[in-house]
Amino acid sequence: MQKIWQKSAQSNTSDIAKIVEKFTVGDDYILDQKVLPYDLKASKAHAQMLHQIKIISKEELEALEKGLAEIKTLWKKGEFEISRTDEDCHTAIEKYLTEKFGTVGEKIHTGRSRNDQILVAMRLLQKHSLQSFTEQIEGLLQSFTEQTEKFGKIKMPGYTHMQRAMPSSVGMWLGSFEASFKDNFQLMQSTQAVIDQNPLGSAAGFGENTFGLDREFTSKKLGFAKTQTNPMYCAYSRGKFEKIILDNLGNFMLDFGKFASDLLLFTTKEFGFFALPDEFLTGSSIMPQKKNYDVLELMRGKTSVFFGYQSQIQEIIKNLPSGYNRDFQLIKAPFLKALQTFGNCLEMTNLVVNNLQPNQAKLEEACSQELYATDEAYKLVKNGISFREAYKKIGAKYI
Amino acid sequence: MQKIWQKSAQSNTSDIAKIVEKFTVGDDYILDQKVLPYDLKASKAHAQMLHQIKIISKEELEALEKGLAEIKTLWKKGEFEISRTDEDCHTAIEKYLTEKFGTVGEKIHTGRSRNDQILVAMRLLQKHSLQSFTEQIEGLLQSFTEQTEKFGKIKMPGYTHMQRAMPSSVGMWLGSFEASFKDNFQLMQSTQAVIDQNPLGSAAGFGENTFGLDREFTSKKLGFAKTQTNPMYCAYSRGKFEKIILDNLGNFMLDFGKFASDLLLFTTKEFGFFALPDEFLTGSSIMPQKKNYDVLELMRGKTSVFFGYQSQIQEIIKNLPSGYNRDFQLIKAPFLKALQTFGNCLEMTNLVVNNLQPNQAKLEEACSQELYATDEAYKLVKNGISFREAYKKIGAKYI
Amino acid sequence: MQKIWQKSAQSNTSDIAKIVEKFTVGDDYILDQKVLPYDLKASKAHAQMLHQIKIISKEELEALEKGLAEIKTLWKKGEFEISRTDEDCHTAIEKYLTEKFGTVGEKIHTGRSRNDQILVAMRLLQKHSLQSFTEQIEGLLQSFTEQTEKFGKIKMPGYTHMQRAMPSSVGMWLGSFEASFKDNFQLMQSTQAVIDQNPLGSAAGFGENTFGLDREFTSKKLGFAKTQTNPMYCAYSRGKFEKIILDNLGNFMLDFGKFASDLLLFTTKEFGFFALPDEFLTGSSIMPQKKNYDVLELMRGKTSVFFGYQSQIQEIIKNLPSGYNRDFQLIKAPFLKALQTFGNCLEMTNLVVNNLQPNQAKLEEACSQELYATDEAYKLVKNGISFREAYKKIGAKYI
Amino acid sequence: MQKIWQKSAQSNTSDIAKIVEKFTVGDDYILDQKVLPYDLKASKAHAQMLHQIKIISKEELEALEKGLAEIKTLWKKGEFEISRTDEDCHTAIEKYLTEKFGTVGEKIHTGRSRNDQILVAMRLLQKHSLQSFTEQIEGLLQSFTEQTEKFGKIKMPGYTHMQRAMPSSVGMWLGSFEASFKDNFQLMQSTQAVIDQNPLGSAAGFGENTFGLDREFTSKKLGFAKTQTNPMYCAYSRGKFEKIILDNLGNFMLDFGKFASDLLLFTTKEFGFFALPDEFLTGSSIMPQKKNYDVLELMRGKTSVFFGYQSQIQEIIKNLPSGYNRDFQLIKAPFLKALQTFGNCLEMTNLVVNNLQPNQAKLEEACSQELYATDEAYKLVKNGISFREAYKKIGAKYI
Repeated sequence: MQKIWQKSAQSNTSDIAKIVEKFTVGDDYILDQKVLPYDLKASKAHAQMLHQIKIISKEELEALEKGLAEIKTLWKKGEFEISRTDEDCHTAIEKYLTEKFGTVGEKIHTGRSRNDQILVAMRLLQKHSLQSFTEQIEGLLQSFTEQTEKFGKIKMPGYTHMQRAMPSSVGMWLGSFEASFKDNFQLMQSTQAVIDQNPLGSAAGFGENTFGLDREFTSKKLGFAKTQTNPMYCAYSRGKFEKIILDNLGNFMLDFGKFASDLLLFTTKEFGFFALPDEFLTGSSIMPQKKNYDVLELMRGKTSVFFGYQSQIQEIIKNLPSGYNRDFQLIKAPFLKALQTFGNCLEMTNLVVNNLQPNQAKLEEACSQELYATDEAYKLVKNGISFREAYKKIGAKYI
Repeated sequence: MQKIWQKSAQSNTSDIAKIVEKFTVGDDYILDQKVLPYDLKASKAHAQMLHQIKIISKEELEALEKGLAEIKTLWKKGEFEISRTDEDCHTAIEKYLTEKFGTVGEKIHTGRSRNDQILVAMRLLQKHSLQSFTEQIEGLLQSFTEQTEKFGKIKMPGYTHMQRAMPSSVGMWLGSFEASFKDNFQLMQSTQAVIDQNPLGSAAGFGENTFGLDREFTSKKLGFAKTQTNPMYCAYSRGKFEKIILDNLGNFMLDFGKFASDLLLFTTKEFGFFALPDEFLTGSSIMPQKKNYDVLELMRGKTSVFFGYQSQIQEIIKNLPSGYNRDFQLIKAPFLKALQTFGNCLEMTNLVVNNLQPNQAKLEEACSQELYATDEAYKLVKNGISFREAYKKIGAKYI
Repeated sequence: MQKIWQKSAQSNTSDIAKIVEKFTVGDDYILDQKVLPYDLKASKAHAQMLHQIKIISKEELEALEKGLAEIKTLWKKGEFEISRTDEDCHTAIEKYLTEKFGTVGEKIHTGRSRNDQILVAMRLLQKHSLQSFTEQIEGLLQSFTEQTEKFGKIKMPGYTHMQRAMPSSVGMWLGSFEASFKDNFQLMQSTQAVIDQNPLGSAAGFGENTFGLDREFTSKKLGFAKTQTNPMYCAYSRGKFEKIILDNLGNFMLDFGKFASDLLLFTTKEFGFFALPDEFLTGSSIMPQKKNYDVLELMRGKTSVFFGYQSQIQEIIKNLPSGYNRDFQLIKAPFLKALQTFGNCLEMTNLVVNNLQPNQAKLEEACSQELYATDEAYKLVKNGISFREAYKKIGAKYI
Repeated sequence: MQKIWQKSAQSNTSDIAKIVEKFTVGDDYILDQKVLPYDLKASKAHAQMLHQIKIISKEELEALEKGLAEIKTLWKKGEFEISRTDEDCHTAIEKYLTEKFGTVGEKIHTGRSRNDQILVAMRLLQKHSLQSFTEQIEGLLQSFTEQTEKFGKIKMPGYTHMQRAMPSSVGMWLGSFEASFKDNFQLMQSTQAVIDQNPLGSAAGFGENTFGLDREFTSKKLGFAKTQTNPMYCAYSRGKFEKIILDNLGNFMLDFGKFASDLLLFTTKEFGFFALPDEFLTGSSIMPQKKNYDVLELMRGKTSVFFGYQSQIQEIIKNLPSGYNRDFQLIKAPFLKALQTFGNCLEMTNLVVNNLQPNQAKLEEACSQELYATDEAYKLVKNGISFREAYKKIGAKYI
C-alpha cells in the first residue's frame, strides 16, 4: 500500500524498502490498537472543528462521524485491523474513511499532522490512565487503613541495619506505606494538572497560519483544562510528559518494591512474621515441599523493569534537538509497558495487603529484651544522668 | 577518638578497624561541612524543645545555645573542623559541646538519633536550596521573556527530523523553552509542598515513648508546614524525597540539555544562526583558529551526569527493607553533587540566553522556499480540493 | 490445567488464583516460542543421559525422542501452542509428552528442575545468537572496507567541538568505526568463550546426589566447551551472562548510534555531505516537500532503548540473594528484545553504509582554509620558532 | 593567568569570564593530581620522540627531562600545585617547564594536542589500575579457596525464592562466588588486551602530516602492545574504553553486592548463620545494644553507586558526533570515582571473607527435614515410579 506521505508510485517494494519499512514501523501497528479509541475521539473533535471553521460541510462532517463510529464498533469487537503497511492507527483511520466515504476521508487531515494527532491521542490516554489509577489508589489506601485497624496493635520488632532495634507494631509498619502513598498521591494530582493541555492544532510542531484553526474549540470538546499554546512546546512535551508521569508512578513502584522486599524477609521460615493464603503461593517443578512467594519476588523485580522503561524514555529525549524527531516514536512502547507494569503491581499490592496473615505469636516472640535497651537508658536519664552516660551503662550489658 | 556509639575502650586502632573506618566514613566528614549550618539550626530547636518538656534546665539550654552559636561562628570562618574520626558533623557538634560545656553536651542527644538528626538537617537544606532555585528560575523566565521581546520576530526555519520543515521564529523557539520551564515550575511548587514535613523526633525511626517529645514544637520553630508523624515513614523518606526533588530538577536539566544541543547545532559554521560573545568561547591547545562553545557542550554532558546521580539515589533505596539502612549514607554525596550541577547549569543557561546573538541575515536566508510547501497545499485546499490531493500536487514539485 | 508443581487439586480457579496466574506468568508463554527449539535440543540430550545412566530404558528414550521431534515439527509450522495455563515451554513440552506417550513423559524431568532447563535453553540460544551475529559483523567490516576503498580519499573537514578543526577524509572517518568494530569483535570472542558452559544438571541450583547425573555427557552432546560445575554458580549466572553479552553488544550499539548521529548532522541541508537513496527516506503526512532520514533517527533512539533493556537486567539481578529467585524470569523479555534491537540495528547499519552517497563537491567545499591553521603553525616551527610562539602568530589571524 | 589557547590579552577577568572558567574547569584541577604522574611519563616519551625526529636538540631534551623529573619530585611530596586558572595538569606542566627552562617549554607541545595528551595519560592510568587490581583479585581468589578449605564441609540450607530448598554447604556457597570471580577475571584479561593501544600522536584527533611523528617510538617507550593507528578512533575511544573497563569491574561489583546481600540476611538474629569480629561492627548513637554490619550495607549500596558512575560515562558518550567534544572532560571524575569505589569494595570483600565466622550449630540446625524432600522423591523413582508421580506422593506430606 502506498504511504500517505508518498508522492508518487515510488518503489516501495524493493528489498531495501521492505527492510526499511520493518525497521521504521516496528511494533507500532500492534501497539496502536491501544491508542486507537483516543485517536478516534480526537479525530471527531478535529472534524467538528473543521466544520466549525467552514473547511468541511455539514454532510462531510456527518460522513466522518459515521465512519469514526464504525471504526469504534469494529475495534470493540477486535475486528479493526492495523497492518504493518498502514504504519500506524492514524493511517489506518484515514484509509478506512477514504475507502468508505471517498474524498471527505482525504479532508480529515487538513490542518493536522500525525505529530499532533499522536500527541493528542496519547494525552487523552494518559489522562484516562491516571484517572483510573487514582481510583485504584484510593482503594489501596482504604485497604491499608482496614488492615491497620484489624492488626495494627500487634507488636513487632523495628529493624535498623537489618538487626532488631526498637519496639514497633504492625500498625506503624503498615502506616509508613500509607503515608508514602499519600505523598505520592498529592504529587500525582499536580502531575495530572500539568499534563491537562491540548496539543491538537500544533500540526507539525509549528502551528498553522492559513485556516485559522480554532484550538479552543477542540480543547473544550475534548475536556482539556487548557490549550497548549506554543506549538513547538507541544512537540517538545512528547516524552517529557511521559517522563513526568512515570516519575510519579515510580514513587509508588518504589513503595511496592519495598513492601514486597519486607514481606519476602518476613515470610522466610526464619522470620515467619507473615503469610499469604495458598492461592498466592506457587511450587517447584522439582522440590515437592516448596511454597514460594513468587508474586512478591515479581513485584520486587518489576520495580527494576519499570525504571528501565522510564530510563528508555528519558534517554531517548535527552539532548534531542527541537522539533519532531522520529526517535519519539520509540517512546510509545516503553510508556505503555510501564503503565501496564504499574497497573499490575498496584492490583497485586492491594490483593496482598488484603490477604495478609500476621503470625502474632512469632511477631511477639521476636520482640526480645534488647529492643527496650534505649528505653532502659531513657529511664536512667529521667533519674538525672546524661544520655551519653546512660547509653554507656546500658550498652555495657550488650557487649 | 572513641565513637559516640562505642561502649568501652574497644580496639579501634587495629589495622582492620582503620580500614573499616575509612570504608564506612567515606567522604562524609568533608560533605558534612555543607550540612552543618542546618544541623546547628535543628539542634538548637531540639535543645529548646528538651527544655520545654523539662529534660534540661534553662541554664543548660543557654549553654547549648551558646555552644551552637560558637560553632556557627567558627564554621563561617572556615575554622570548624570535622575530622574523619568524628565520622560526621553530628558527632563533631556533640564533641565540641561536651568538651566546652561538660555534661550538658552529653544531654543534647536525648530523644534523638543520628537518623532523625541527619534527616532534619537535610530536609532544611533541601527546603533552602529549592527556595533559592525558585528565585533564580524566576530570573531565567524573565531573561527568556526579554530576549523574546528583543529578537522574537526574527524568522527562523522550523526543523523536523533535522530537516527544514516549516516557517518558525526565534520567538517561537525561545517560547517553547519558557513554556517548559513554567510547567516544571508548577511541579516544583508541589514538590516543595510535599517535602515540607518535620522528621525530627522520629529518633531511630520508631519514635519515642518515655519523654513525650513535643514534635509540634520543633516543627513550628523550624518553620515546617507539618510534622511527619509516622516515624517509620521518616526513615523511609530518606532518599525518596531526594528522588522526588531530583525528578523535578531533572525536568529543567532536560530543558538545559535541549537548549544547549540546539545551540551547538545552530552555532556550527554550517548553520551559523547564533553566536555568543568571545568571553564564552575557549580555544584549542593545538589549533590556533578554534573558537569553541565548551560551555554548551558541558551543559549537554552535565545532563547525563545529573541523571547518573539521580540513578545512584534511586537504585540505592530500591528494594531496601524498612527501617534505617546504612546504604542511606551514600545518598548524601550524589544529592549534593546533583544540586550543585543543577545550580551551575541554571546559572549558565541564564547567562547564555542573556548574551545570545542571533545572526538575522543567516536565519532569514535559511527560510528557503520549501518551508512554505504546506502553505501552498493549504491554498489549494482553500480552492476546494482535498488535502491529500493538494499534498500530492505540491509534493510532486519536490521529488 | 493443573500446574506441574501442584500437589493436589488445589483451588486454582478462584479470582485470586487467576490474577496471580496472570501476574506470575506474564508474557512468558509467548516469549517461550523463541526458546522452545533450544529447550527441545537440551531435553533430548537430557533424555539420552538418563538412558545412559539407566534411569530410563531404550524404548522410553525412543519415545521421548520421537515426541520431541514431533514438537519440533509442529513448532516449525507454527502449530505448537504454549498457553498461559502452561506457564512456559517447559511445562508445555512435558504435557505433550505425557499426553501422547504416558508415564515416560513424567520421567523426563528426573534429575532436572525448570531452573537448569531454562538456563541451558537460554545458554544455547545465546551461543547461537552470538554465532549468527559474528557472521553479520564480518559482513559489516567488509562493507566498511569496501566503501573506504571506493570513497576513502575524498577530503572532509575534521570537527572538534562541532566546529571545523583539521583536514580529514571520508576514509579516516569510516575507518574510525571499523577500528571500533574490530575491538568490540575481539571482546565478543572472549564473551563467547566465557559463556560456553553447560548448566544442565545443576537442577534447582544445588545439584543432585542420588542418580549420579553424567554432566559431561550432556556437555559433549550439546557442544559446550565445558561443564559449569558449581551448581549454585549456574543459578547465579542467570542474568549475569545476559549482562555480559549485552555489555559487549552495547559497544556496537554505541558505534551504530554515533554513526547515525554523525550522518544525521551530515545529511542536513546545511551540511549536505552525504545522502541515502530515496528508498531509505520517508515523508511527512502534512509537509509535501519532506525527505526524512527516519532510519538514522531510529538507530539513534534504539541505542537508548537497548541500554534500557540492559539496565532492567542489571538492576533485576543486583543485590539478589543467592539461589534461584523468581525475579530471574523477568530477564527473558528484555534480553530477547535487546537481541532483536541489536540485530535490527546491525542489519540497518550495514545497509546504510553500503548505500552511502558522499557529495564530493560539498565535502571539498567545506575544507576551508581554517582547517590548515595548525599546519601553518607547524611550518613556522620547522623554521625554528617554538610551537607556542607559532600558535600565537597564526592565531592572531583568526581573532 | 593567560590560557595556553588564548591568542592575545583578551579579557578573561570579566564576571562572565570567571563564571565560564569555573563552569568549564570544574574539579579537573583537583582530579588531575591523580593523572599527573602518567602525564609526566607520556610527556617524557613525547619529548624523546621529538628529539628522535629532530624537532628538538639533545640539550632541549635534557632540559625537558630534568623539568619533568622535578615536577615528579614535587608531586610526590604533595607540592606540585595545579590551580583552577591552570585548567588542568597539562597546562600546569607546560607552564612549569616554560617558567623554569624558557623557550624549550614552549616546544614540548609540538605535534601534540591536549586531546592525545589526556588520552595517553588516562590510558596509562587505566593499564596501571587494572594491573594492580589483577593482583588483588588473585589474593581474593586465594582467600575464598582458603576459607572453603577451612569451612567448606559445613552443611547449610540451599535457598530458592528465599525459602529453604535443598541441602547445600558453606563450600558450595563460597565456591559459587569464586567461580564467578574466575569468569570475570578471564574477561578482565581480554579487556586489558583490548585497551593496550597507544593514542599519543593522534594530536587533535586527526593526526599530523608535517613532522612525521614516530608513533611506534612512543608506543615502545611507554610499553604499549600496539599503536592505535586511526587518529579519529583515538578520540573516539575516550569514554568507550572507560565503559569497557567498568563493564568488567561491574561484574565483580555485582558479586560483591550479592555476597554482602547474602551476608546481611545470614547475619540477622533470625538466621544467625555467620558473624564478623567486633572490629567490623558499628553501633548506634541512640540504641546501646546495637551491633551493625555497616560494612556489608555499604558494599550493597556502593554497587548502585558504581553503576551510577558507569551510566554517567555511557550516557555522556552516547550519540555524540565524531571528533573531540568537551563532554569528554566529564568522564574523568566518574571514572576515577568508580575505580576508587571498586578498589575499596575489593579490599573490603577480601577482609570480610578472611574474617568470616560460620556458626556451625545454627547452620546445621537450619538443615531441616524439608530440604530432603526431593531426595525422598528420587528414592521412589529409583524404586521404579515416574518422577512426577513420586513428586506428588512426597508433596502431599507438605501441604
